[in-house]
Amino acid sequence: MGKTIVVKEHETPIYEIRIENSYAHFDEVLRQLKIAGHRVCIVSDTTISKYYMKDVVEIVKDYASLVETFTLQPGEEHKNLDSVQALYEYLIQSKFDRNDFLIALGGGVVGDLTGYVAATYLRGISFIQMPTTLLSMVDSSIGGKTGVDFAAYKNMVGAFKQPKAVYINTSVLETLTPRQFYSGFGEVTKYGYISDAPFDAWLQENVEKLIQKDSEALAHMIERSCNNKRVVVEEDPTEKGIRAILNFGHTLGHAIEKMMDFQLLHGECVAIGMVAAAYISQQRGMITEEQLQTIQNTLEQFQLPTKIKNLDEKTLIDITKNDKKMDAGKIKFILLDGIGHAVIDPTVTTDEMLAGFRYVVEKGE
Amino acid sequence: MGKTIVVKEHETPIYEIRIENSYAHFDEVLRQLKIAGHRVCIVSDTTISKYYMKDVVEIVKDYASLVETFTLQPGEEHKNLDSVQALYEYLIQSKFDRNDFLIALGGGVVGDLTGYVAATYLRGISFIQMPTTLLSMVDSSIGGKTGVDFAAYKNMVGAFKQPKAVYINTSVLETLTPRQFYSGFGEVTKYGYISDAPFDAWLQENVEKLIQKDSEALAHMIERSCNNKRVVVEEDPTEKGIRAILNFGHTLGHAIEKMMDFQLLHGECVAIGMVAAAYISQQRGMITEEQLQTIQNTLEQFQLPTKIKNLDEKTLIDITKNDKKMDAGKIKFILLDGIGHAVIDPTVTTDEMLAGFRYVVEKGE
Repeated sequence: MGKTIVVKEHETPIYEIRIENSYAHFDEVLRQLKIAGHRVCIVSDTTISKYYMKDVVEIVKDYASLVETFTLQPGEEHKNLDSVQALYEYLIQSKFDRNDFLIALGGGVVGDLTGYVAATYLRGISFIQMPTTLLSMVDSSIGGKTGVDFAAYKNMVGAFKQPKAVYINTSVLETLTPRQFYSGFGEVTKYGYISDAPFDAWLQENVEKLIQKDSEALAHMIERSCNNKRVVVEEDPTEKGIRAILNFGHTLGHAIEKMMDFQLLHGECVAIGMVAAAYISQQRGMITEEQLQTIQNTLEQFQLPTKIKNLDEKTLIDITKNDKKMDAGKIKFILLDGIGHAVIDPTVTTDEMLAGFRYVVEKGE
Repeated sequence: MGKTIVVKEHETPIYEIRIENSYAHFDEVLRQLKIAGHRVCIVSDTTISKYYMKDVVEIVKDYASLVETFTLQPGEEHKNLDSVQALYEYLIQSKFDRNDFLIALGGGVVGDLTGYVAATYLRGISFIQMPTTLLSMVDSSIGGKTGVDFAAYKNMVGAFKQPKAVYINTSVLETLTPRQFYSGFGEVTKYGYISDAPFDAWLQENVEKLIQKDSEALAHMIERSCNNKRVVVEEDPTEKGIRAILNFGHTLGHAIEKMMDFQLLHGECVAIGMVAAAYISQQRGMITEEQLQTIQNTLEQFQLPTKIKNLDEKTLIDITKNDKKMDAGKIKFILLDGIGHAVIDPTVTTDEMLAGFRYVVEKGE
């Protein structure tokens, strides 16, 4: 039943993504990584910990010489250097050395932060990703981007650090809030638009099954999403070029996320950002009006917002221009050249961005 | 006149070490790295800045689109995450992006900290090492170890990050204090003992010239030291194995450094640590009594301490056992199996370490 994806770097296999519907096979991962005799610290947040920490500890304790747990308060506002330092201190107290392991059991915040600590504690120790949100299963747990926010900037401080394994238990999606669950479709649908038109078609055909959390449909969707990300990341592990297409919808999405002070979830902001970027593409004649409409409809079927109320355009543009994705003053904007084909374009003008924003911002009330 | 060493990773050249006796050729490095149009921040400390910042800024400003300077208070106590965060903030304010550069103009503290910020700001930007102490020229500026101290532990937080270039101007050694200068010979002599017996012989023959700072002798010594380090680092960039031999003298040296609360310089502690490790090697019959004596004599000729007064052995052993070089509870001790040949040995007992300490600790007064 389970699926395995092998991720390579320079042609060499470096880790496996396992997609299962329980934690029953996690012991195989621990054996494969020769965790016996080493210390393990499982990092989670108070929400996730309540549901799954006990199960995971039970499995790990049969292998590790010591199992510690470290629990963060949930939420992006705790993804900062204070939490990082608290975890460093905990690891020092528990005498963790270079051969010990961290496990990130949680969503993107837990994964990004744990990965960053794994990248920098003693110049790097091993870690395993156990993503528990749809968003982290299909996106942030894969590809080695780790980091924390700093001075109100997202992921300003970070490192590239590949996990030793990613273990996805799809059954944990049951305990996600509906909004958290749907937010993940912001990244799932993105893969269809940027590189996999047949997947986009499949998603449209399977909306009902996916919303009902049909386990086979979900497993297929997650596998296909991970595979799409894997291909891009293998080609360009440190985002020197093509990997930037994964930022489709993110340039404007991040600006919205920031202006809304993280009241909207990441996937929700990406959905709105994708619509704005698709509109700019349509205005340039790169996709049709009908394709733009289909993108909006699909996102709406997955309960994602495609419009936003009353945001000030000028501020949005200013935030966008200060985004760290700028290169030497130029924004590398991602546009669609047809469905399933993204292009990196540094020529998008402020006027085009403004038009994109106007398309998604509803005046009124 | 200048010398160039090419450093490779997996057979691919990744950066050059230039050894010159002025800053006159630094512009060539800037051109080679295509720094034109990018921002540069030169990081230094107040001591070094006074002597050389102006010269370096003059050269860089002809190439970079913006030259900023950031000056730390000197000393190991400022190599911490507070200084790191202050530099992040400065870079954010100056809108540094992924294509911009840092330059570390200073000794080991400046180099380690700047390298760590370069490794983690926006998940990594480029940096250049311009070491200004003998110790950083022959050791810390090469090999990609970056990091800062945390919670009283040296280099507890860090990353492997290779510089884009190392530019050594040997003439700056003129402004070093004699004690700082001699401290560098702790690492220089080490290369002779661990991997290069002919270099050890050459050093013994050239003590006078080197102490007089004869510029040709110094350039040769620095080149040979860098080359010795290069060979080890190329074989084992992230210290999975052989690179540990560079820690000869460091296991006990770090413990002494910590117990003395950094009143002794790094190279001075390494010198004492090397004598203790050489004594353990001699007791095991791996080097002769005469070789041990010669090591001590050479270090003393370079004005380095080989004994220390009144340190409590028990505390030293405790600190040693808490050193982060431990692997799964075992200390990877570096011993000499003849001059010019180091071995990694995990079997050194507490009694042997105690005997080593007793050999270098002078009771008394």
